[in-house]
Amino acid sequence: MSAVIFSLRSAPEGDRLMLPLVRRTRDPHLGVWALPGGWLDPDEDLDSAASRTLAETTALMPSYLEQLYTFGAVDRSPTRVVSIVYWALLRSDLVDAQRSSAGAPENVEWFDADDLPPLAFDHNHIADYALDRLRNKVGYSRIAAGLLPDEFTLTELREVYEAVLGRRLDPSNFRRLLEGTDELVPTERFRTGKHRPARLYRRNRDT
Amino acid sequence: MSAVIFSLRSAPEGDRLMLPLVRRTRDPHLGVWALPGGWLDPDEDLDSAASRTLAETTALMPSYLEQLYTFGAVDRSPTRVVSIVYWALLRSDLVDAQRSSAGAPENVEWFDADDLPPLAFDHNHIADYALDRLRNKVGYSRIAAGLLPDEFTLTELREVYEAVLGRRLDPSNFRRLLEGTDELVPTERFRTGKHRPARLYRRNRDT
Repeated sequence: MSAVIFSLRSAPEGDRLMLPLVRRTRDPHLGVWALPGGWLDPDEDLDSAASRTLAETTALMPSYLEQLYTFGAVDRSPTRVVSIVYWALLRSDLVDAQRSSAGAPENVEWFDADDLPPLAFDHNHIADYALDRLRNKVGYSRIAAGLLPDEFTLTELREVYEAVLGRRLDPSNFRRLLEGTDELVPTERFRTGKHRPARLYRRNRDT
Repeated sequence: MSAVIFSLRSAPEGDRLMLPLVRRTRDPHLGVWALPGGWLDPDEDLDSAASRTLAETTALMPSYLEQLYTFGAVDRSPTRVVSIVYWALLRSDLVDAQRSSAGAPENVEWFDADDLPPLAFDHNHIADYALDRLRNKVGYSRIAAGLLPDEFTLTELREVYEAVLGRRLDPSNFRRLLEGTDELVPTERFRTGKHRPARLYRRNRDT
């Protein structure tokens, strides 16, 4: 079992899409960075094993882990190992809360999803697969649900999406695109502050 | 490895969405219908194993098998077995050609996807999962690619979709819906016959 967990982490140039890696403490690939994971126990379902191995290695507990894909190329490991990979999005405030309450394991670090070091086994391939899925096949509503609080402005959603895609988006086009979907629902509440009040949206749970 | 292969088979009331099952010749579940499949060889990739076990059990060779999901509930089999499931759509003319050239195994039969017998292991659950995916998450373009020849009329596509969904669709609404997507491309060719000539479409390979 392995897991690819994406979160947004603050960086000087704005939020960056990042994922946690674990430095291996045994052979093969001793000392090399790898996706968090571990072995399936004989008396444990796949979902449980994914949650358990992620918690054991990183102290992270996403509310929702989803099966991504099963990787089983013959040469992906010195012995024949089929890896069932799960993935999740995790809000950065929850990452911080979980790490401070559980204690962050020492051999875990967060890496920029677009600038990963060479990883053990086929884990670079797996991380790329997860990133491609996130960028190309996940709708605005799920991105919002995974990385933002329950209510958010369109600007906040755009900034999250920019971090996910790794490029700037035109604000008016983004707004028009969203108004053409039913993935978001406007609320009657507004974000106030030093800028013009901005309407808060929530995701449409019916879609 | 197991495989769920959907095709349209002629029935008196119109085309029906069907899938092939194999009657088991060994324990557990001797004599019970099951999804086609078999064991992963130590020196074989997952995709190859899915194709090989499907061909060995049913003589069917879809042009494209896609990994669906990996099922691993602890109690799904008397011993612990994790099953990596693939699925595909297969045009009925190709089914017929493959079966006549390879010889149809005697213990294989096609069943109505909505009226399956009790299956071995968790195979009813797996078949339901595949059917739900097909009905809810697969676009018109892929349905067309999997179940229709390269060019087709909107009426032919609607009839295929009706068979997939198991219900009638309103022809004008269906046409409007498709005109709002870029999944289909009109050609300059028409289907002629006893009815008014109907424009032929093909799927948009860019989407």
